[in-house]
Amino acid sequence: MPNKTSEEGITAKKDENFSEWFTQVVQRCELADIRYNVKGFLVFQPWSVLAMEKMYGILENNLQKKGHKPYFFPTLIPEENLKKESSHIGGFTPEVFWVTQGGKNKFEERLALRPTSETAFYQMFSLWIRSHKDLPFKAYQRANVFRYETKATRPFLRSREFHWIERHSAHATEKDAFVQVKEDMQTTEEVLQNIFGIPFIFFERPAWDKFPGAYRTFAADALNPDGKVIQQPSTHIISQDFSKAFDVKFKDKDEKEKLAWITCYGPAISRIFASVIITHGDNKGLRFPWEIAPTQIIIIPIDKKLNKKAEQLKKEIEKFASVEIDYSNKRPGEKFNYWEMKGIPIRIDLGLKDLEKKQITIFRRDLNKKELISETNVIKTIQKISAEFTKNLIKQANKVFDNRIKDTKNLSGIKKAIQQGSIARCGWCSVEKDGEKCAEVIEKETGAEVRGTKFDEKNKTSGKCVICNKPAKHVVYIAKSY
Amino acid sequence: MPNKTSEEGITAKKDENFSEWFTQVVQRCELADIRYNVKGFLVFQPWSVLAMEKMYGILENNLQKKGHKPYFFPTLIPEENLKKESSHIGGFTPEVFWVTQGGKNKFEERLALRPTSETAFYQMFSLWIRSHKDLPFKAYQRANVFRYETKATRPFLRSREFHWIERHSAHATEKDAFVQVKEDMQTTEEVLQNIFGIPFIFFERPAWDKFPGAYRTFAADALNPDGKVIQQPSTHIISQDFSKAFDVKFKDKDEKEKLAWITCYGPAISRIFASVIITHGDNKGLRFPWEIAPTQIIIIPIDKKLNKKAEQLKKEIEKFASVEIDYSNKRPGEKFNYWEMKGIPIRIDLGLKDLEKKQITIFRRDLNKKELISETNVIKTIQKISAEFTKNLIKQANKVFDNRIKDTKNLSGIKKAIQQGSIARCGWCSVEKDGEKCAEVIEKETGAEVRGTKFDEKNKTSGKCVICNKPAKHVVYIAKSY
Repeated sequence: MPNKTSEEGITAKKDENFSEWFTQVVQRCELADIRYNVKGFLVFQPWSVLAMEKMYGILENNLQKKGHKPYFFPTLIPEENLKKESSHIGGFTPEVFWVTQGGKNKFEERLALRPTSETAFYQMFSLWIRSHKDLPFKAYQRANVFRYETKATRPFLRSREFHWIERHSAHATEKDAFVQVKEDMQTTEEVLQNIFGIPFIFFERPAWDKFPGAYRTFAADALNPDGKVIQQPSTHIISQDFSKAFDVKFKDKDEKEKLAWITCYGPAISRIFASVIITHGDNKGLRFPWEIAPTQIIIIPIDKKLNKKAEQLKKEIEKFASVEIDYSNKRPGEKFNYWEMKGIPIRIDLGLKDLEKKQITIFRRDLNKKELISETNVIKTIQKISAEFTKNLIKQANKVFDNRIKDTKNLSGIKKAIQQGSIARCGWCSVEKDGEKCAEVIEKETGAEVRGTKFDEKNKTSGKCVICNKPAKHVVYIAKSY
Repeated sequence: MPNKTSEEGITAKKDENFSEWFTQVVQRCELADIRYNVKGFLVFQPWSVLAMEKMYGILENNLQKKGHKPYFFPTLIPEENLKKESSHIGGFTPEVFWVTQGGKNKFEERLALRPTSETAFYQMFSLWIRSHKDLPFKAYQRANVFRYETKATRPFLRSREFHWIERHSAHATEKDAFVQVKEDMQTTEEVLQNIFGIPFIFFERPAWDKFPGAYRTFAADALNPDGKVIQQPSTHIISQDFSKAFDVKFKDKDEKEKLAWITCYGPAISRIFASVIITHGDNKGLRFPWEIAPTQIIIIPIDKKLNKKAEQLKKEIEKFASVEIDYSNKRPGEKFNYWEMKGIPIRIDLGLKDLEKKQITIFRRDLNKKELISETNVIKTIQKISAEFTKNLIKQANKVFDNRIKDTKNLSGIKKAIQQGSIARCGWCSVEKDGEKCAEVIEKETGAEVRGTKFDEKNKTSGKCVICNKPAKHVVYIAKSY
């Protein structure tokens, strides 16, 4: 049931007016309806849900193969749990929705709608973990979480309820915890980069920008056309204050009782979906990577006489890809525009004249190209395109991303890079507490933030900190964010 | 990480002490942990979540094939929505959890944690539906819902947060709505009966026992060993008061504006899982139907020398079934008991002596039978068992169920049937309002309820109402419930 505006197509240009472009894509491709009557909450519509369900499937499979087991934890967390670790409660309290009544009963203690579930998981870890033999303990859940955001909300990018996976684990040593964190970065690469096609950099956040309660925070940043980075999955070695607060201990091989090392990882599916839209979309609308397209192939019989042919073809294609036929009453041109906007990877146009010549037209959205091919080659061609489709999207996306990382040597260089919508790379004094003052200068002068040091940085540190001129210990990346 | 009690196995007998048996299965098979510190909320553990995820997949596929589209609606519903339809708010208000604060802000209007989402969906239906061309409008969501239950909670059977699918649709006519309701009953049969193996009867509920806001209510009842029925999916033609309250109208072919006919269907996955446990479980523990077993096959190499053989076999089996190898240090007997308790359909025991004779032992949980088979026949045998596994469970379950429906002719007959833990079938005066008085007599005298008339009843009505002696218009079924 396309709405009126969806028939208009996308009119805003992605590079000229990104914000309006994004709004139009969300609305006209019918991804989400923001007219729900609770502020900051929205209705996710089938075209986004179908893709997000595939994204869930891919990520959950990946985690399960690595030995993480699925749980469903309660949505409600007692206030006492949140209070147990001071920096965590400090970080999240301003954003908590509180349940205070059930029926006519007022509760003595408030219950939080989970903003995240560390304080739910770790009290159970304390019951489940006894010995080093129980470690590593690897759990995750698919869940919706709630944050009473004070910043402006945008569909998928930031809303007050969002859909994510949270992975929590306990380990015997800091070293083991770090192995898990590296696995998370690997998972992010395998899934977000190689399947969803989103370019990003995994940073270790500076001391002043860690997750509330974390000892070390690593986070992936993707980049939007407006020059702002958007944080994608983050993974953390949780402070042992947490293990202590929740009594997550184990008896080690040496018979001594020790605090476990905890890590957590949080890929937010609805926000990753935002980066899918933004990374691959163009002025015509959406472009879905092959593996997560709600429908991979649409067949358009241009004449009713070809309906039978369309059905035959559908049956063939169904064996290896998802496929639909558009029988609607719209004109062919309208149908072409509609499905290009909706981001279906491959369109097959069946025309009478083409078929007389035993030919079929295939339109591929990765290259936005029409190809007239011999009827006998249809299946082979589709399979070939499907195999290279996401790779093509990735190539295009990486080119855009790589071009927007600029090496800078001083404040004015950084300003210029930020103004151009780029990420600035530069030398930096310290990512510990004592480097925060320089970061404050950056923020005041440019409105941008130090996002951290790149994990496995290959660029060498040289010269001086761009702000204080002390010898540079790190290469850091600076960008605006939402 | 099996816990201590899981090593003990199940000690309670299902038919002698059903309640204790159920508690032991939930705890010792590690399906749910009730030690979470919010009353009525629990942690669903991997062994149940893996099965429930498969159940979600099967049900969602079925619905999608029938044209129902997936949505994610907000968890929060404003109080004003709930108030719009009086019988609905009357039915649900005592059970609503209320969110009243965000951060430090107190809200002017309370927000409900959805107990069910009619009042969320239908306000959007009002925006999405304009014309008869938009009908039928078929939507569903996978969601968790919340009810501040005043009755005692039991894991899976009744908890304050549970996991379900809710399907909502709008139609042009009552007839179309009824077609949808019949489709829901068909879906329930296809999935709950034929794949999950749960016997049930689909009733139309009497006038005094309809869903709050429904015009007609149909609900499936399964039967527990304690003689109590447990309501499984229900489907409803919603009262047009709802369409009116939420302004769900459409312009019909005759250009007139009409109220839409709305239906909804609610299969509660976590509660259906309860019926899976209860229907198929035995004194050893769980028995999973083939299609939803978290793992379908476990291989136990009884000697380390056979690990390689186990790996080879696993590779072969992986092509068509999920399979694990148990390398733990436990004794073989312990392993056998453990996996039988966990309900894995097929166990393969690899023993040195057997293999010298080129033989392998297969244990099948449907018939609780060991078979010694020739090594060359392993794959063929497993495939054969997998094809008949669920059918065997269904046969056993149906036999138990069918034996517990008793024809009765008077109150003492009903009493006797109920005492024996059966469902009583009898003649009945009326399922409209005027029949409620007789139902009250039944409830007072037997503690049981009139569950309704069987949809597509094949037994003929004859004689008189068992209570008032007026001519019987219906055959009804009477049973205790939770």
